[in-house]
Amino acid sequence: MAQATLSIDLAAICNNWRALDKLSAVETGACVKADAYGLGAPRVARALAQAGARSFFVALTEEGAALRQHLGDGIDIYVFSGHMKGDTDMIGDLGLIPLINSVDQMLRHVEALPGAPFGIQLDSGMNRLGMEPGEWAAVRDIALSQGPRLVMSHLACADEPNHAMNAMQHRAFSEMIDGVNARRSLAATGGVLLGAPYHFDMTRPGIGLYGGMPFADAQPVVKLDIPIIQTRDIDIGESVGYGNAFIAQRPSRIATIGSGYADGILRAMGPKAALFCNDTRVPVAGRISMDLIGVDITDASEGADTLELLGHHQSVDTLAEWSGTIGYEILTSLGARYKRRYVGV
Amino acid sequence: MAQATLSIDLAAICNNWRALDKLSAVETGACVKADAYGLGAPRVARALAQAGARSFFVALTEEGAALRQHLGDGIDIYVFSGHMKGDTDMIGDLGLIPLINSVDQMLRHVEALPGAPFGIQLDSGMNRLGMEPGEWAAVRDIALSQGPRLVMSHLACADEPNHAMNAMQHRAFSEMIDGVNARRSLAATGGVLLGAPYHFDMTRPGIGLYGGMPFADAQPVVKLDIPIIQTRDIDIGESVGYGNAFIAQRPSRIATIGSGYADGILRAMGPKAALFCNDTRVPVAGRISMDLIGVDITDASEGADTLELLGHHQSVDTLAEWSGTIGYEILTSLGARYKRRYVGV
Repeated sequence: MAQATLSIDLAAICNNWRALDKLSAVETGACVKADAYGLGAPRVARALAQAGARSFFVALTEEGAALRQHLGDGIDIYVFSGHMKGDTDMIGDLGLIPLINSVDQMLRHVEALPGAPFGIQLDSGMNRLGMEPGEWAAVRDIALSQGPRLVMSHLACADEPNHAMNAMQHRAFSEMIDGVNARRSLAATGGVLLGAPYHFDMTRPGIGLYGGMPFADAQPVVKLDIPIIQTRDIDIGESVGYGNAFIAQRPSRIATIGSGYADGILRAMGPKAALFCNDTRVPVAGRISMDLIGVDITDASEGADTLELLGHHQSVDTLAEWSGTIGYEILTSLGARYKRRYVGV
Repeated sequence: MAQATLSIDLAAICNNWRALDKLSAVETGACVKADAYGLGAPRVARALAQAGARSFFVALTEEGAALRQHLGDGIDIYVFSGHMKGDTDMIGDLGLIPLINSVDQMLRHVEALPGAPFGIQLDSGMNRLGMEPGEWAAVRDIALSQGPRLVMSHLACADEPNHAMNAMQHRAFSEMIDGVNARRSLAATGGVLLGAPYHFDMTRPGIGLYGGMPFADAQPVVKLDIPIIQTRDIDIGESVGYGNAFIAQRPSRIATIGSGYADGILRAMGPKAALFCNDTRVPVAGRISMDLIGVDITDASEGADTLELLGHHQSVDTLAEWSGTIGYEILTSLGARYKRRYVGV
C-alpha cells in the first residue's frame, strides 16, 4: 500500500471545542464549513454534537443539506451564503437557517418561505458578506417582525488582537444591533480570544477546533503518515526529481514516498519542507511532485515504513509557514486519496 | 445556489489525446492518476477508452482498483507505485499491472502472484521511482523470463527540450533495455513533444490531455463559473476582506463570490488573480478566503450572475503563473464542492 494515512483525532477536536467554550460565558457553536476544514463534516459534526454543540455553521446550502442527514433534527444549521436563488427547496425541506446577506435575499426568503427560520448577516466593515447599514435600515423592521434566529457579523482582523479594525467593527456591529431583541454573534476563534466584549450571545469557532492558530492552546488534531515506496543510495552530484532541483552534496540515501501535491501537500512548501523518520528530521529532496516526494533520509536510522509529515513534531501551521500561507489552507487542501482514520472516539 | 460550476469537456480531452497520438507512430496510453488530474478518473477514462486508449496509468493500487470497476476487463491498468505490501489481493483480483520498482517488489510479485502480469520501472537518472542499473542487473534475468508487459522510465526535464538531462536519460534507458524483448516506454507529454527517438513502443501523456503546458496546442478542457452572492458599493479608503488587504482607491463596486481556497483556488494567487465578468477582466480585491472571494467589478457592466475564473479567457497555466506553480497543481487542486458538469459527450 502506497496510500498515506491521515488520522483525525475527534477527541482532540471535542477537547478544543470545550476549551474554547470555557473561554466565554455564552453558547459555543461550531463552524464545519468546507467539509469541517477538510477533516470530514459528518464525523466531526456528529462528535461535536455529542459533546454538546447545538449550532453549526456552513458556507453553502448544499453543505447544510448534506449535514442535516448526519445530524438529524433539533440542531441549528446556519448557512453563511444565505438564501440564494435555487436554494429554497433545500432550505425549506431540511430546515436550514440562511444568514440573510442582502435585501434581495430577505425578500426571496419571506416570499418563498414565510415563517421559516433565518438569521441576519451584517457587514461591520469587512465588505465581504452581510448587509450594509443602509440596506439594514431599509429591511430592519420587516426582518425583526419575523423574529430572526441570530444576528451576526464577522471580524476581518481578529487574529491581530491589537488591530484597530477590531474595535471599529465592534462599534459598527453594536450600532447596527442597537435595540435588536435577537441573539447576536460576532466572534469566530480569533474573536473568542479577544475577550468577553466580543462574545455577545454565541461564538462560532472554526480553526481553533481543528488545532490551528490563533488558538495556541489547541490540541493537535491531524497526523499524516506517508509510506516509503523505495529507497536508493546516490553519489555526490546526482540529482533527484523534476528539474534536477536537488543535487547531492554528500553520498545520500533517498526515500521516495507516496503522496504529493495532488494530495494537498502544497508544491510551494517544497524547498523548506521536512518530514520525520521516527524522531529524526529528514528534509525533502527536490520538488514535490504530483504523487511522490523524494526525501533525504541519510541521517535517519533504518527500519521505517512511513515518514510523518503532520503530527506532534510539526503542525499545520509549520507547513503553512513553509508554504507562505495559513494553517487553514493546509487543512482544507488535505486530499481525497488518503486513507482516513478517525481516532479518539 | 452559491455553489460554483466546473465544466469538464470530455470531447476536448479526447481531441487532445488524438492530437498527441498523431505525434507518434506508436501506441498512446493515458495517464489518469490523481483522479485524472482532478477531473474525475471514471468519466475521463471511459471517454478515452471509447476514443481508443487501451493502456491507462495510475499512481496507487487503490486508484487502479477503483478504475477497473469503470473500465471493465480487456484494458491495461498500470500502477506506478508498483507492488507494495498489502496490495497483492487487489492486484491479483482486478488484474492490475504493477510497475515493479525494486528487487523487493520483484520478489514480492513473483512469490505472491506467479504468472501475473507486471511491468518494470527503471531509473534513468531522476532518482525517484524505478530500479537502479545495479538492481536491474541483479533481477533482469528473472524478470525477463517472466515476460514483463512493459519496461519504462520517466524523464525529469522533458518540459525543457534543450536540457542535457533528456539525452542523458535517453542514453541511460537505452543501455538498460539493450537486448530486452519487451515493449518500452519513456515519454509522457513532454517526451512526446521531444520527437520519435523518445517514443519507443508506447507514450503515456497526462497533462497534455487536460489542456496544460507543455502541450501548447491543447484544447482547453475546464471552465469554472462562480456565483456572485452579493454586490456592494464602497467608498475610497474602505477595505475588503481579511487583514484589510484591499483598500479602495476610487469609489468601487465589489462582488463577493462563492468559492475560495477550500475549493482549490490557491491562496497564493490572490494578489495577481482576476476573473472575467462576461468579457471584462475584473481583479480580485483582497485576500482569497476559504469559501469567498471579493472581486472589484467596478469596470464591468451589470447583469452577470457568475464570474469566470477558468475558461477561454484564462487557462490553468495563467492561474499557475499567478500562484508561482504549474498548471498540474491548479488542476489537481480543483475542489470537491463544485457542481461538476461533463460536457462534449
